[in-house]
Amino acid sequence: MSREALKSASISQLKKFCEALREEIFQTVAVRGGHLASNLGIVELTIGLHRVFSFPEDKIIFDVGHQCYVHKLLTGRANRFFTLRQRHGISGFPKRTESEYDSYDTGHAGTSVSAALGIAKARDLKGEKFQVIALIGDGSLNNGLIYEALNSLKILNTKILIVLNDNGMSISPTVGGTHEVLEDLKGGSSSVEDIALFERYGLQYMGVYNANNLEELLPALEQAKSALQSNSVLLHVTTRKGQGYAFCERDPDRTHGISPAKPEKEYSMALGEELLTMAERDNCVVAVTAAMTDALGLRQFFERYPERAFDVGICEEHASVLSAALAAAGMRPYYAIYSTFLQRAFDEIIHDVCGQKLPVVFCIDRAGISGSDGETHQGVFDLSYLSMIPNLVVAIPKNIAEFRAILRKSISLNGPLAIRYPREGEEGDARAVEFGKFEVLQSTMSDIIIYAAGERCVNLARRVMSLAFNEGISVSLVNACFAKPLDYDLIDSRKEKYVITIEDNVLRGGIGEAIAHYLCNSDKQVFSFGCADRFIPHGSVSELMEEFGPSQNAILNCIRECYARG
Amino acid sequence: MSREALKSASISQLKKFCEALREEIFQTVAVRGGHLASNLGIVELTIGLHRVFSFPEDKIIFDVGHQCYVHKLLTGRANRFFTLRQRHGISGFPKRTESEYDSYDTGHAGTSVSAALGIAKARDLKGEKFQVIALIGDGSLNNGLIYEALNSLKILNTKILIVLNDNGMSISPTVGGTHEVLEDLKGGSSSVEDIALFERYGLQYMGVYNANNLEELLPALEQAKSALQSNSVLLHVTTRKGQGYAFCERDPDRTHGISPAKPEKEYSMALGEELLTMAERDNCVVAVTAAMTDALGLRQFFERYPERAFDVGICEEHASVLSAALAAAGMRPYYAIYSTFLQRAFDEIIHDVCGQKLPVVFCIDRAGISGSDGETHQGVFDLSYLSMIPNLVVAIPKNIAEFRAILRKSISLNGPLAIRYPREGEEGDARAVEFGKFEVLQSTMSDIIIYAAGERCVNLARRVMSLAFNEGISVSLVNACFAKPLDYDLIDSRKEKYVITIEDNVLRGGIGEAIAHYLCNSDKQVFSFGCADRFIPHGSVSELMEEFGPSQNAILNCIRECYARG
Repeated sequence: MSREALKSASISQLKKFCEALREEIFQTVAVRGGHLASNLGIVELTIGLHRVFSFPEDKIIFDVGHQCYVHKLLTGRANRFFTLRQRHGISGFPKRTESEYDSYDTGHAGTSVSAALGIAKARDLKGEKFQVIALIGDGSLNNGLIYEALNSLKILNTKILIVLNDNGMSISPTVGGTHEVLEDLKGGSSSVEDIALFERYGLQYMGVYNANNLEELLPALEQAKSALQSNSVLLHVTTRKGQGYAFCERDPDRTHGISPAKPEKEYSMALGEELLTMAERDNCVVAVTAAMTDALGLRQFFERYPERAFDVGICEEHASVLSAALAAAGMRPYYAIYSTFLQRAFDEIIHDVCGQKLPVVFCIDRAGISGSDGETHQGVFDLSYLSMIPNLVVAIPKNIAEFRAILRKSISLNGPLAIRYPREGEEGDARAVEFGKFEVLQSTMSDIIIYAAGERCVNLARRVMSLAFNEGISVSLVNACFAKPLDYDLIDSRKEKYVITIEDNVLRGGIGEAIAHYLCNSDKQVFSFGCADRFIPHGSVSELMEEFGPSQNAILNCIRECYARG
Repeated sequence: MSREALKSASISQLKKFCEALREEIFQTVAVRGGHLASNLGIVELTIGLHRVFSFPEDKIIFDVGHQCYVHKLLTGRANRFFTLRQRHGISGFPKRTESEYDSYDTGHAGTSVSAALGIAKARDLKGEKFQVIALIGDGSLNNGLIYEALNSLKILNTKILIVLNDNGMSISPTVGGTHEVLEDLKGGSSSVEDIALFERYGLQYMGVYNANNLEELLPALEQAKSALQSNSVLLHVTTRKGQGYAFCERDPDRTHGISPAKPEKEYSMALGEELLTMAERDNCVVAVTAAMTDALGLRQFFERYPERAFDVGICEEHASVLSAALAAAGMRPYYAIYSTFLQRAFDEIIHDVCGQKLPVVFCIDRAGISGSDGETHQGVFDLSYLSMIPNLVVAIPKNIAEFRAILRKSISLNGPLAIRYPREGEEGDARAVEFGKFEVLQSTMSDIIIYAAGERCVNLARRVMSLAFNEGISVSLVNACFAKPLDYDLIDSRKEKYVITIEDNVLRGGIGEAIAHYLCNSDKQVFSFGCADRFIPHGSVSELMEEFGPSQNAILNCIRECYARG
């Protein structure tokens, strides 16, 4: 159905179309991976918005943006939709560079209302006329950025429509005081106070509590559009995450994101196992997460120690300060989070945790290139933004066994620690870990040595070394498992003339730059391999590593050249 | 009056004591500089808290922390109070290392409720009994972190007292929707809805609207303490910023912070002047700030172009996304902010501004060592955390004239720009600025060259060069005015064997490391001078520069050694 046809279609035609869209999304995500339950839930709402508003003249900003599949299917991208999340294919998130229908790029939570306000204010200043819509889930509504934006609605004196898509879930179930208000509202036990939560900011509240039903939804959208002539409007719609697929409706948490090929072994499993053991031995061990209990491996911990496990919703900053304060009061907090989302807590890592040298352990998953989610989700900045912070130890385990060893040892560290690791890994062998000490993995008579940071880069180094060995070139290898402090003693002790560094992080501020800086007045030559100085798009991890990360071919060529120079 | 005497003193004795405290604060701040109006306003409230609660067993967290002077005077620091903000003297902010009465370090806005929750939760887990109080101003209440914390009150299931010290001001007057609710409440026109703003989070609301009056304040504090047995409590107290000093009461904005010696010329003046001129020529120029209009030089801009100037309150993240969206919709936003506070918007710089390559200009004041405010306010991380971000140009003007030239040129840049500068500066001479191009300031026949970043470091280099010249050593000097992109052409063109870099930023991730990395396989020797890898305490800028920053003596010695080696 074209977008024009959609505007005049009957309800029953639209219903059929909705089912077709659901099937398309289901089939594609089953093969390509991606966000399933949220996109199934939002089919009717997206159809409704496209029927009532006029895109691309009107602008819609998707908070987080993972729920934009239907929008993409409706805006000229249906016949390329099977390329979802593939290199050079359709992105799983809104991208201005992909379509004029995508008016603002998102990926992290809570930006939509601020962005809508900016676009609406620019419209007013330019004397233009169009509608601006922020589409936000109830999980994102907990994020502090939303309140900062709501608080400035009256200051900015402009008009926007906020569509609150309430499915009761973040990735995990939504939690907290605001959530209770939403439950009241849709449960019919709402009061003047509940509505006032929004009205005090200058928003007219409207609600439609069964938005998967087009008969109810469409008139509500029309009303909201009319009301928008005189006020900013919050339209509270409830949808069912996973709608139409029983197994998704039953388990929206685990069907939030689908991986076509789940790794055999993940670091998150080890995190969950080790924290459980540590918590048994030490009453002070507590776990903190920002709405991602399952993905980070903490489900069992939350079940076994509910009073010592804190899911504060999509509030990365608050989780960081909370961890700092728990540590200041004698607890040992382990704050698990994805690398890209930890950026949100940057100031709190500096100001609250490291400034007070408090023993918070950041367990940073999805570090390095994370793959199919693209630009907004790559974890390629953490070594840079963490290594510059005083008092922080930054660890990069070479395998899961070493990760476990670092975790166990962390309980004795008198200060903050960050451990960053990719999703997938191999158990491998442990060694006795000492903070700030590298490990020589292979020592040859060669004049070439590689310092590799983290499992992917150690494995990459081994592959390159094997290829070089076939050409008669042997190379030494060091597990550079601490970006801070660097192991200067070990670096000093090595005689190799050619030093190669490998990391899955941008070069600027990374471990390679730091080693090069240290060796810069020696007679050694340093060659650093890392991620390109650009935002890395979506694709498979291996494709992206070769194209934008430390490239196997480039490293091999470097080894050959060093060898030839002698 | 001792803290014990304070508990049994009569109201009239307390009133006299309050006046004595005011005088002590006024006299000290007049000489030492610091936060005046807020501390004058909070005398009675602090006295009241110390009378009703038992510190240090009970814990108090000061949001931002600039209003802790009375607390310090009451807790064993009165006879050292004249050392306020001096090197080795009393800090202007709470410091756990300074006193057991300071339970949590603060400096940035919005952390107090999260911190109180963490300390209270740890208390519960350990089975301890004491009260935890977050003392927060109405300006900080706008910060998103507060809502993240409030939202998790019910999740964490613990009890805290939030004392909301409402003086109607951030540094600038407080703005926004939440502020209007507070105005209603204390104006007597409050409604159930207003109180519900807090009650929905599980807070019992109590108010005392003339808290500079001890007769009203003390019973209210006693009631809040009792209520705390069964609920978390929000006690809304109104105080008068600057209370007791007419000129402070009249102008609390300008008496928020007092400088004993205001610099003759400040970068902020130039920012205000240039933006006005640019705004006249180009309707798209807009200014954004987070509650710091005056300090950043934007007062005139706000008066001349109120519809194009946005003060969104202490919401650094929202200001960043708002700027991104304004730029996405065709405006040219200039977002002025202090270096240390920009850390709060780190993710939004990456995700919203640079990820979309939007032409937002960050005007970053108080970069480098900022002096008397200490650890939480030094701007020594920005070159590192900004230079690692793709698409961003990072400029470090050598004087105010160059700053103006960069600003004027910024209007033609097709992407984001960060300009970082210290508070004070000299006008100096302009040159034709080209993005990413260094400038040779002095070229000698010497084998030694200095790359200096920013006005302070260029001036430092000149001083050192003059001393070296007296010893018969000449040195070349480059104005390394872009941390990103680096001017590789110029670096390549220079033949000097010894390269010295100077920056007022931590070395890790800074400009020196990047230049060393670039030159690491050349036959050149690189010596980098920057800030120590530690949190830098309070003191004068010059003291701190010599002790923790790039030291004049160390650089001079380096030059001597290079010269001796030949």
